[in-house]
Amino acid sequence: MIHLYAFDTPNGRKISVALEEMQLPYDVTIVDIGKGEQFAETFLRISPNNKIPAVVDDEGPEGPLSIFESGAILVYLGQKTGKFWPSSIADQAEVLQWLMFQVGGFGPMPGQVHHFVGLTDEQDRRYGLERFQAETRRLYAVMNRHLDKRRWFAKELSIADFAILGWVWRHARHRVDLADFPAVARWYADLMERPGVQRGFAIELRRQPA
Amino acid sequence: MIHLYAFDTPNGRKISVALEEMQLPYDVTIVDIGKGEQFAETFLRISPNNKIPAVVDDEGPEGPLSIFESGAILVYLGQKTGKFWPSSIADQAEVLQWLMFQVGGFGPMPGQVHHFVGLTDEQDRRYGLERFQAETRRLYAVMNRHLDKRRWFAKELSIADFAILGWVWRHARHRVDLADFPAVARWYADLMERPGVQRGFAIELRRQPA
Ligand SMILES: N[C@@H](CCC(=O)N[C@@H](CS)C(=O)NCC(=O)O)C(=O)O
Ligand SMILES: N[C@@H](CCC(=O)N[C@@H](CS)C(=O)NCC(=O)O)C(=O)O
Repeated sequence: MIHLYAFDTPNGRKISVALEEMQLPYDVTIVDIGKGEQFAETFLRISPNNKIPAVVDDEGPEGPLSIFESGAILVYLGQKTGKFWPSSIADQAEVLQWLMFQVGGFGPMPGQVHHFVGLTDEQDRRYGLERFQAETRRLYAVMNRHLDKRRWFAKELSIADFAILGWVWRHARHRVDLADFPAVARWYADLMERPGVQRGFAIELRRQPA
Repeated sequence: MIHLYAFDTPNGRKISVALEEMQLPYDVTIVDIGKGEQFAETFLRISPNNKIPAVVDDEGPEGPLSIFESGAILVYLGQKTGKFWPSSIADQAEVLQWLMFQVGGFGPMPGQVHHFVGLTDEQDRRYGLERFQAETRRLYAVMNRHLDKRRWFAKELSIADFAILGWVWRHARHRVDLADFPAVARWYADLMERPGVQRGFAIELRRQPA
């Protein structure tokens, strides 16, 4: 059984979507990062950088295995199931470059928009918001150009799409209108029609108020 | 033959270090990002996100292969050579989580310090510099805690160490004193003593003024 430690955020949703699409059985432990639960000693033992998501697989290839960082988790799940992860090294490289594009850029940059947009002091807010919104829009333009010529990021639907999806799902929060990026909008709509993706977004990753 | 497209920056140095440590033959095309050469059409064809590094391998597993994103390049080189890349999936997951930690955090965050530190307008500078310096120091603390108990990031010296090294190499630029993080300092000194690492940092990645 796979145990997912997550919260209702882009990086958490990537993994619930992938688990559903791969049809792997799993249970969820909600780590409420709004309440600081990511700093609990028990959680730090599996995620030393105090971030969700993390995963523990009781049935790892050599016994129980724990992994942090969503990109590492996605590759592991792809390897474990052989799904959404190609078998040739050349095709893996194509998936990995778009996965890394997400982890290194289209994640940290919209994430900064989410931060700066929430600041109330106008002086603190202005420069950073402008900077990270511009960079985020640049990344959407890169994705749009790519998706204009192809259906998915790599040859076939892959973990790279799931990784990027987690963040596009939050486009309103980083103030991007998908109408400006029609190829991304088309790709997003295609993904959101998939039952597995829908299940991945429906699963509870936030505690309901009692 | 491998063709490396790079510049003298943390993300460029990761790859020259890895190529030297793996003893792979390669040539270098300098892409001067200070002069905007990353926006040239010929470069965008191999690196659509207009960033260095990128690599073209004439002798890819199924013919010529081009890859962007340093993390994807490192995994590919590890797979190609079997060096600094373990063979079991469990060990690969351990390497990948620290590689992703670098690509997603210990890269974007010190990179923002490098940006904000250079701003001259004090109002633009203050909030961002404080934010990203604090986050960068937090990441050093995570690394220090980890390296306090082990020699390398994963079980053996791996591509994750090379990825992180590229950024620790620039600690002065993000205003971090390694004396505050003794385990990181020890790890850094160990790596910098390696002839391959030294060659990787010595190779010309910046055009000399004529
Ligand atoms: N590069 C990491 C980023 C993870 C991340 O930023 N997680 C956020 C939520 S989306 C978090 O746990 N933040 C809590 C904290 O930093 O204290 C990944 O892809 O897994
Ligand atoms: N996540 C990317 C980051 C690459 C990156 O930021 N490269 C910088 C130099 S270190 C660059 O090419 N900047 C030029 C630009 O963005 O226009 C990677 O790891 O390869």
